[in-house]
Amino acid sequence: MSIHLQREIENLKKKILSLGAIVEQAVQQATESIEQADADLASQVIEQDLRIDDTEVEVEEDCLKILALYQPVATDLRFIIAVLKINNDLERIGDLAVNIAERGKFLATQPKPDISFDFAKMSGYARQMLKTSLDSLVDFSAEEAGRVCESDDAVDSMNRQMYLMVQDSIRENINQIESLIHLLSVSRHLERIGDHATNIAEDVIYMVQGQIIRHKTENYK
Amino acid sequence: MSIHLQREIENLKKKILSLGAIVEQAVQQATESIEQADADLASQVIEQDLRIDDTEVEVEEDCLKILALYQPVATDLRFIIAVLKINNDLERIGDLAVNIAERGKFLATQPKPDISFDFAKMSGYARQMLKTSLDSLVDFSAEEAGRVCESDDAVDSMNRQMYLMVQDSIRENINQIESLIHLLSVSRHLERIGDHATNIAEDVIYMVQGQIIRHKTENYK
Repeated sequence: MSIHLQREIENLKKKILSLGAIVEQAVQQATESIEQADADLASQVIEQDLRIDDTEVEVEEDCLKILALYQPVATDLRFIIAVLKINNDLERIGDLAVNIAERGKFLATQPKPDISFDFAKMSGYARQMLKTSLDSLVDFSAEEAGRVCESDDAVDSMNRQMYLMVQDSIRENINQIESLIHLLSVSRHLERIGDHATNIAEDVIYMVQGQIIRHKTENYK
Repeated sequence: MSIHLQREIENLKKKILSLGAIVEQAVQQATESIEQADADLASQVIEQDLRIDDTEVEVEEDCLKILALYQPVATDLRFIIAVLKINNDLERIGDLAVNIAERGKFLATQPKPDISFDFAKMSGYARQMLKTSLDSLVDFSAEEAGRVCESDDAVDSMNRQMYLMVQDSIRENINQIESLIHLLSVSRHLERIGDHATNIAEDVIYMVQGQIIRHKTENYK
């Protein structure tokens, strides 16, 4: 590969990792705004989404520029296509962080609902999946990516548990129904963040192995 | 553009439109399984998702093959990249139809919940958005795509209305809480289908105008 293409790919790697770090922080702060009933922190997450959106646009333009200028093939082509798709997932995770923060702003105005659910733990799982999926991209490691797909079960299971807890809590505290339904949404958003990390990991496996493993999850176990 | 590339692009257009038609039908049938409490129809939607997944993989492989073999530039390159992303959205809409159908299977085993929400109308809006977004791709029409983005408000507003209706119904019929929360999920899934159609439309606008309009929705109005 030409030295110029190599340099462009290195820059792209840095940019997508930096986008990943901003998105991960947004998810962390959004969850914290729920746990701490912190409306200011929630507003901060919502404002910072502009930076995520701008970076997504930049990354996509970089990918198109590289494709048009260098016409990469084989591994390089697969890397660019993977970045294009992963970029999309990161932006949507950013949107989910905003949705969580919006719930945070509302919940901060309400009495604390009577439910003990470990959002920090669930958010921690989802963020770890995100981090590992991006590491696997940079390391070109299908094995690392495979671990992300396996972790998705833990997040899904916490979400199912939350459904049951919310139903019980509504039965006991019908006056808190609105807040409890908002908390259920937060759990669903975290579960979807886990799904996006899984999508990223699947794209990495495809990039590395040159075959599409989506919908055939047994292949990378 | 070479005659071969032209032929490949025409084939790709046909394939993505045919995927769109299958996905649209899945959404329609999944919604019908809710309205008619039809567990068999729901199971059919779940089984047919395999076909959507297989077609998605085929479309992605076709895009990569075209990029590697013909190294398209300008409009052709933007079209291939748009198809790659739209393909992804279509597959995720298929997954949402499966999620709706899974709720349909559960709800068919329960007494009909006491709520009158027009799922057929909401699903109709979402499917119309999907159809128009794919038409705008084939017609290279930013104007048509712009209309999709505008329609998203109607679907969002129906989803918000559903939140309020479900809260009221749970207050009145606490014993139906599980079914009502499932119906709320159906409404959210339809709302997300509208979001995916909006993403498709935004990709078309980018393809046609050569500029990324995401996050700047006023530009195409």
